[in-house]
Amino acid sequence: MGQTIQIEKANSLKEKPDVSNIKFGTVFTDYMFSSHYTPEHGWETPTITPYKNLELSPALQSIHYGQSVFEGLKAYKSGDDILLFRPEENFKRLNRSLERLSMPKINEEDAIKALKELLQLEKDWVPDGPGQSLYIRPFVFADEPFLGVRPSRTYRFLIILSPVAGYSGAALDPTSIYVEDEYVRAVRGGIGNAKAAGNYAASLLAQQKANNLGYEQVLWLDGVHQEYIEEVGSMNIFFVRNGEIVTPELNGSILEGITRKSIIELAEYKGYTVKEERVHIDDFLKGVQDGSISEVFGAGTAAVISPIGRMNIHDTDYIINDNQPGDVAKDLYDHYTEIQYGRLEDPFGWVQKA
Amino acid sequence: MGQTIQIEKANSLKEKPDVSNIKFGTVFTDYMFSSHYTPEHGWETPTITPYKNLELSPALQSIHYGQSVFEGLKAYKSGDDILLFRPEENFKRLNRSLERLSMPKINEEDAIKALKELLQLEKDWVPDGPGQSLYIRPFVFADEPFLGVRPSRTYRFLIILSPVAGYSGAALDPTSIYVEDEYVRAVRGGIGNAKAAGNYAASLLAQQKANNLGYEQVLWLDGVHQEYIEEVGSMNIFFVRNGEIVTPELNGSILEGITRKSIIELAEYKGYTVKEERVHIDDFLKGVQDGSISEVFGAGTAAVISPIGRMNIHDTDYIINDNQPGDVAKDLYDHYTEIQYGRLEDPFGWVQKA
Repeated sequence: MGQTIQIEKANSLKEKPDVSNIKFGTVFTDYMFSSHYTPEHGWETPTITPYKNLELSPALQSIHYGQSVFEGLKAYKSGDDILLFRPEENFKRLNRSLERLSMPKINEEDAIKALKELLQLEKDWVPDGPGQSLYIRPFVFADEPFLGVRPSRTYRFLIILSPVAGYSGAALDPTSIYVEDEYVRAVRGGIGNAKAAGNYAASLLAQQKANNLGYEQVLWLDGVHQEYIEEVGSMNIFFVRNGEIVTPELNGSILEGITRKSIIELAEYKGYTVKEERVHIDDFLKGVQDGSISEVFGAGTAAVISPIGRMNIHDTDYIINDNQPGDVAKDLYDHYTEIQYGRLEDPFGWVQKA
Repeated sequence: MGQTIQIEKANSLKEKPDVSNIKFGTVFTDYMFSSHYTPEHGWETPTITPYKNLELSPALQSIHYGQSVFEGLKAYKSGDDILLFRPEENFKRLNRSLERLSMPKINEEDAIKALKELLQLEKDWVPDGPGQSLYIRPFVFADEPFLGVRPSRTYRFLIILSPVAGYSGAALDPTSIYVEDEYVRAVRGGIGNAKAAGNYAASLLAQQKANNLGYEQVLWLDGVHQEYIEEVGSMNIFFVRNGEIVTPELNGSILEGITRKSIIELAEYKGYTVKEERVHIDDFLKGVQDGSISEVFGAGTAAVISPIGRMNIHDTDYIINDNQPGDVAKDLYDHYTEIQYGRLEDPFGWVQKA
């Protein structure tokens, strides 16, 4: 990249949908960004084109051997401005994911520049209703047509955009969680801390099992002992224990959530004590039973903060905080989203104009 | 499926290459098979078309969340016949992989029928040189354009064909192996026993590390203890200990190789004692050091049997059997491939005409 981005204009634009009525990740905007990698020339031909299907080989490396990683972030409408929240963190993490999957890194500054140019072109797609935003999906996948097991020689980097109301339902509606102790998502030494396509496919069977048992999402335990709390798959997990905020410490198999990191920083700024520690599921369960754990919530880009009102632990159903959003979750959610939408002062320098 | 397969004829056919000079998985034949799945109609529109690029959405579920599994088998030329080796085992395993990744199963009989029809059309592509065959790649991937984390609603099942000389170099050329004790490929409870795209992407960094240290492939240890021998990624591993053949027992994270299973059956038929057991790397190392382990070899569809002549275990280099193919490996390889090419009697009913 580094070169000027070529723009191919669309002949006609799509009609903008009523964002409050669309499902997460189903509607895409008029344009997308793409760039192509070869070992000879690196990343080149950065282009913004109309959003359209790709012509790909049936022997595509990423379909056969899964070299594919992604990121997720959001753009927020604030008056006439479009705001981004810590985009550099996403592209840093994209590079960590790329490295773990033996894929070539992108230039983070060029990527942010490309994203901003795309957003300027698509500024009318950033919705301004409550909780609404434009979901941004940067992703890189291997596109060499080749069936030997080795890293692809060529890759594509794309950014696509999708207006969203929220990941699921109304903000702060409590979700329900099944603690999974049979299937494993990731293990240290593996790729659990990369946003790699394969991690998500591996999670779906447990997700379906949880759904069949009446729970919305899965809480994963560690792959070695199947005893320590890891993450929810689309969110990191937090809980409030004796007034302090606790979250599992990063260990190589937990995704290093940017919302996780930012919530920790915001909570500490607001005077909460935050502890990152290894959490045994039985200690957690004891806390739920004796009331020392008063709130549980997830944190991730899509849902921001999602209170957890009901949990299945060792085949028993537990109600957390009367299945209501807790005070700490509400306090952090409000402050965090006000910063994201530019309505509260940002003492961290997290928010920038697109 | 179950319906008649529609055939769309190509206007012109490609020139057949000199198979002895092409690299594994780089040349594809004139035609491919495809079928499409919807929840409403199941698998339908089975079609043989010219081999061509696919038009796919940038929001393709399999690129973002990795619902993609595959199989690998070979067709062999025997006079005017084309032979297949236990194809029902591949489609059974494909269904096990599909189930693990929350994908819809295919009809195994219809798939074999489709494969045979494709092979009849492509019979001139099955090469007849020594060790040559037509590599068959059935695969299924999610093709719904949707960014929510849940199973795709729609899927494609394709079969593509590629003439091959052998996976790497001459038959029975010993390979070198690095025993990986940092990175992990799979863990029980995960998807290690599925032929899922994501497993292969997860293996590439260790593969590159091994290559940089001068070894061709990686031997994976178990994900829980990082102490027990699992597999080589493209092959299962066998060794000869005090004249008996030993291979790691299946445990949920080792791929259930069809070559593995067939080699065990053939070896027992030939009077060898075969043991499937949990093998600690340090016990294995002791056997290499004291000479009780006389041969090590891998077994998989691509390479059939691949003697292992050099191994790095705990950062020390060991030469196995003077870096020469061992007698047991040669004996099994010869018998096995003679059956595959229809030149020796097949007492197992493994070989069938396409």
